[in-house]
Amino acid sequence: MDNLDLCEANNVPLTPITFLKRASECYPNRTSIIYGQTRFTWPQTYERCCRLAASLITLNIAKNDVVSVLAPNIPAMYEMHFAVPMAGAVLNPINTRLDATSITAILRHAKPKIFFIDRSFQPLAQEVLHLLSSDNSNLNLLVIFIDENDYPKRVSCDELDYECLIQRGEPTPSFVARMFRIQDEHDPISLNYTSGTTADPKGVVISHRGAYLCSLSVIIGWEMGTCPVYLWTLPMFHCNGWTFTWATAARGGTSVCMRHVTAPEIYKNIVMHSVTHMCCVPTVFNILLKGNSLDLSHRSGPVHVLTGGSPPPAALVKKVQRLGFQVMHVYGLTEATGPVLFCEWQDEWNRLPENQQMELKARQGLSILGLAEVDVKNKETQESVPRDGKTMGEIVMKGSSIMKGYLKNPKATFEAFKHGWFNTGDVGVIHPDGHIEIKDRSKDIIISGGENISSVEVENVLYKYPKVLETAVVAMPHPMWGETPCAFVVLEKSETTNKEGREDKYVTRERNLIEYCRENLPHFMCPRKVVFLEELPKNGNGKILKPKLRDIAKGLVAEDEVNVRSKVV
Amino acid sequence: MDNLDLCEANNVPLTPITFLKRASECYPNRTSIIYGQTRFTWPQTYERCCRLAASLITLNIAKNDVVSVLAPNIPAMYEMHFAVPMAGAVLNPINTRLDATSITAILRHAKPKIFFIDRSFQPLAQEVLHLLSSDNSNLNLLVIFIDENDYPKRVSCDELDYECLIQRGEPTPSFVARMFRIQDEHDPISLNYTSGTTADPKGVVISHRGAYLCSLSVIIGWEMGTCPVYLWTLPMFHCNGWTFTWATAARGGTSVCMRHVTAPEIYKNIVMHSVTHMCCVPTVFNILLKGNSLDLSHRSGPVHVLTGGSPPPAALVKKVQRLGFQVMHVYGLTEATGPVLFCEWQDEWNRLPENQQMELKARQGLSILGLAEVDVKNKETQESVPRDGKTMGEIVMKGSSIMKGYLKNPKATFEAFKHGWFNTGDVGVIHPDGHIEIKDRSKDIIISGGENISSVEVENVLYKYPKVLETAVVAMPHPMWGETPCAFVVLEKSETTNKEGREDKYVTRERNLIEYCRENLPHFMCPRKVVFLEELPKNGNGKILKPKLRDIAKGLVAEDEVNVRSKVV
Repeated sequence: MDNLDLCEANNVPLTPITFLKRASECYPNRTSIIYGQTRFTWPQTYERCCRLAASLITLNIAKNDVVSVLAPNIPAMYEMHFAVPMAGAVLNPINTRLDATSITAILRHAKPKIFFIDRSFQPLAQEVLHLLSSDNSNLNLLVIFIDENDYPKRVSCDELDYECLIQRGEPTPSFVARMFRIQDEHDPISLNYTSGTTADPKGVVISHRGAYLCSLSVIIGWEMGTCPVYLWTLPMFHCNGWTFTWATAARGGTSVCMRHVTAPEIYKNIVMHSVTHMCCVPTVFNILLKGNSLDLSHRSGPVHVLTGGSPPPAALVKKVQRLGFQVMHVYGLTEATGPVLFCEWQDEWNRLPENQQMELKARQGLSILGLAEVDVKNKETQESVPRDGKTMGEIVMKGSSIMKGYLKNPKATFEAFKHGWFNTGDVGVIHPDGHIEIKDRSKDIIISGGENISSVEVENVLYKYPKVLETAVVAMPHPMWGETPCAFVVLEKSETTNKEGREDKYVTRERNLIEYCRENLPHFMCPRKVVFLEELPKNGNGKILKPKLRDIAKGLVAEDEVNVRSKVV
Repeated sequence: MDNLDLCEANNVPLTPITFLKRASECYPNRTSIIYGQTRFTWPQTYERCCRLAASLITLNIAKNDVVSVLAPNIPAMYEMHFAVPMAGAVLNPINTRLDATSITAILRHAKPKIFFIDRSFQPLAQEVLHLLSSDNSNLNLLVIFIDENDYPKRVSCDELDYECLIQRGEPTPSFVARMFRIQDEHDPISLNYTSGTTADPKGVVISHRGAYLCSLSVIIGWEMGTCPVYLWTLPMFHCNGWTFTWATAARGGTSVCMRHVTAPEIYKNIVMHSVTHMCCVPTVFNILLKGNSLDLSHRSGPVHVLTGGSPPPAALVKKVQRLGFQVMHVYGLTEATGPVLFCEWQDEWNRLPENQQMELKARQGLSILGLAEVDVKNKETQESVPRDGKTMGEIVMKGSSIMKGYLKNPKATFEAFKHGWFNTGDVGVIHPDGHIEIKDRSKDIIISGGENISSVEVENVLYKYPKVLETAVVAMPHPMWGETPCAFVVLEKSETTNKEGREDKYVTRERNLIEYCRENLPHFMCPRKVVFLEELPKNGNGKILKPKLRDIAKGLVAEDEVNVRSKVV
C-alpha cells in the first residue's frame, strides 16, 4: 500500500477555479451572466477571466499578492472571483457601504498591489486615496477603474481600465496551464474583512481548499439542481456571496447581476429571467414586503431564498413565504468561508401548523458536509452540552473550510482556534433532533440576576406583535438585577405618520408591549423598557449595531424603576 | 499570508467516515437500515460500527491491514464500509459471483488479516480455504462468519462471529477519538478488484480523500436530496456500491438491503418502504421488465434510477421509464472510485421527441465536480479531439478521486497514469454540447477496412429491432476487410418457445436483421453475421464477456462469404 506514490493524474489541488473551466466545457451554450443588456455565455466568461488573469500576470501580480476591489454586484466583480486567483493572487472584496476611513484602514492592513474601483465609487475612492497618500504607508498601489457600459465598444485603450485589461490580456497556453494548476490547495484565495463592530476589522484569509469544499457543501445543503438562475441580491463582497460566486459556476448557473437592491429591481429581474435562487439577509425581507408579491401563475415554482446573517424572525419568514418565496435558513461566518449550518426541511414538519413550521425554520440547523464536526460546548469546561434544546454553550466547529486565520493578527487567530476548535463566539443549544439553534452572540447575551437571557428569543416574541417592523433587544443596567432587557422597536410606517398624540400613544404602546411580553415570556426575560425609533442603527452589511443600542440603553431607566422613583418622590 | 499555519481546527483530513458521525448527530430519529424485519436508526448504526471497529482494533488490526469480505447486500456489508476504515484498515469487498479459484487468487494477492464470510457462502468459502491451505502462501487468515437472523438474540459468544464482535467491542473514548481522526486523507480506504476479463484481476486502491470527493460528487450529480430511501440493487462489492454506501450516510438516507435481486423483491421493497433511489447495471432493466410495473398512483414521484457499467440502449431506457422509473445514465470506473460522468438532463431536451430524448440520455454526459478534468485525446498525438461528436479518442481524466494505483502492480499503474492522466481505455467522442459519449472499449472497437466501428453503435440499432432482448457485437475476421461486425442476439422468450421451424426462422431472421441494419447504418458498419443465443455469456458483474464471443466469432463465416463460396462451389 505504501508504494503507491501520488502523481499528476490522481492528486490535483482542490480549487473552485476548476469550476469555471468545467462550466465552459460542459455548458458551452448556457448564459453565465445577465446584467441589463449584457449577456455572456460560459465560454465567454472563461475567456474573459483568462484574459484578465493574463493581464494581471503581465502586471507582475505574483503568488499571494492582494488585489482589492470596491464594486457592487456587476459582472466584473463576478469575473474577478476567478481571474484574480487564476493569476495566483488573493482577492480582497471590500464592503462598499463602508466609509473612507474604514476602507483606508483595510487597504493599509491588506497592502494590495492593485485596487479595482467601480466608477460609481470614484468620489469615495478619491477620499480613500487622499487619506492613503497623506500618511507614510509606502503603498505602491495601482488603481484601475471599472467603467459601466463600455463592455463591447472600447477599441483603443488610453488609460488602464478594467475592459482594457481584458482586451489586452493574452492567455497563452503556458499562462492558461499555470492558471489552472495551483501549487497548494491550502494557498489563500480570498481575504475578507469582517465588519467588526467593536475593534478594527479583522482580515479573514480563506483557502482554495476551503472555498472548494464550501461551494460543494452549499450546493448540497440547498439541494441546488443543475443550471439555476441566481439573482445577486446578496453582495459578492459579503463572504464571496456566501461562496455562490463559485458555486453557481459549479452548477452551470446563470448569475443575474444587479447594481442596486430595490424591490422593483428584484421583482423585475425575477420575472424577466425566471430566477430560481437568491440569497439575502433577513432585512431584505422587509424590502420584499414593501414591493409587489410574485405572480406565481406564470412560474413553475417558488424562488428559493437562502437567508442568514441573523436569525430570521418566524413571523417575517411566514410573511415572505406567502409572497412566493421558499425560505431556507442558514448560519454562516466569514471565518468559516460561508454558510455552515443549513436548516434542512424534515418531511414530518409538513404535518405541523404553519406557526410551528416557521419556528422550526428559524433554527440554524445541521452541519454542512464540508465540515468535519460542529458542536456546542460549555465555555468553562469545554464539555459538549446535552442535546436538550435548553442548555446553552458556545458553537464550535472544525474542518477544512474554516479560515486559515486572521491576517497579521496572531493573537486573534490564537484565540479563535483555542482548544483545537474554531470558536464562533455564538451561543446556542442543540435540540434533541440534532438541529442547532443560536440563542445569541456571546456579547449580546443579557445576564439578569444570574440568568442568561437570549436577546434573540425576546426579539422573536416582539416580532409577533402587530405592526412591529424591526426590533433589537440589548442589556440595560439595572440596580437590582445587574442587567435587564431593553427593547428598541421600529413600527410599520402607517403607525408613525399620525403625529398628533404620538407621544401618548408611545407611552401606552410601551406598556402594552411589556404587558404582551409578560404574557408570552418568563417574567425575568421581559423588557423593562421599550424605545421606539424611526430606524435601527446598522453597519455596512445591514447588521444591527447592538453596541450603539447598548450605549443608548446605558442612559435609560427601566419602567419599574420609574414607578419606584415616583413612589419615593 | 505565509505565517498562517494549519492547525487542528482548520485542517481535518477528508474521509467519508465523518458522514457516519454526522448522520448519528443530525438524523438521530431516522432509519439508517431496513433489512427484512431488521431496523436500525443512525445512532444505532453509529454504535454498531464503533463497536465493530473497537473489536477489530482489539484483534490487532492496524493501519493499512486488509480486511476482506464476501457477502451480499446485508447490513453487515454496509457497516463494514465504515467500521473497517474506522479501525484504520482497508476494506476489500469481494465479488460474490466469482468462483473459488478467482477468490483464492484475490486473497493470495491482497493478503488480508481477516476474512468475513456470509454464512450462505460457506461452501464456496471452504473451497477457497482449502485451495489456500494447499499452497504455501503463509496467509495467517482469521475467518469470521456473518450469520443471518442472529442479530438481536445471541447473548454468549462461543465462536467468533460478526454479531459477537459487535457485542464484544468496547468503543472507549480514546478508541473512538482515534477512529474519527485518520492521519492522512490519501491513506487507502478500500481495495477493489476489477473483473479483468483477459488477465488476472487488478487490485484498485482508493483513498479516503477520493471516496469523500466522489461521494459528494455523486450526490450533486444525481441531485439527491436529503433523507432518500435507497434500495440496494447494485452490489456493494461493486466499487463500494458506486460510493453510495457512504453517500447515503452523507444524506441521512435509509438503506433498504436485499439479499437477492429479483423482480418481486425489488417491487415489494419499493412499495413497502417508499423507495426513492436505486442504482443498477442496464441488465437489471430486463429483470424489471419481466416484473410488474410500479403502481404510481400511490407514489408522489418516480423511483430515481442511476444506471451505468455499460451504455444503456435507448430502447431499453424508454421501456423502463414507462414502468415508473426515472433513469439517469452515468459512466464510472473502479479506478475512478465510482461514477465520473453524469448525463445531466438539459431543460431544452424536454421539447424533443421521446426517441431522441432517450438517445441523449444514453450518452455518458458531463464530468463530476470531484474531478479536476476530463478529456478525450488522440491516443497517438495526445491532442484533444475536436468537439464534433464524431472524432473518436481515448477518454482520460485527472483529479483527486482517481485511484492511488493498482496494488503491487507498478507496471499496470505506470501504464494507467501515462502522460499525467488516468487513461481509461475507453473510446469516446465529445459532442458540441460538451457531453461525452463512449463509443467502445479500446479493445472492443472493430476495425474494418481501416474504418473504426463502434460495436455499441451497432448494438444500439439492433436493440430497436422488435423482440431483441439483448445483443452484443464483436469483431469477426474477414479476408477482405480484416475485421467485420458479428452480432450475437438473444430474442424475447415468446420468440424462442415455438420449437418447430425455428432453424428456418433464424435464417430468415438473420437476413432480416442484416437488411434492417443496412437501412439504418452505413454499409461497412452492418453485421455480416448474426448468431442467435439463449443467453449471452457474462462475468460476475453481469458484464457481457466479449472475448468469449470473439472466440466464437473467429470460427464463423460472414454471410457474404457464404454467398461467394456457394457461387464458387
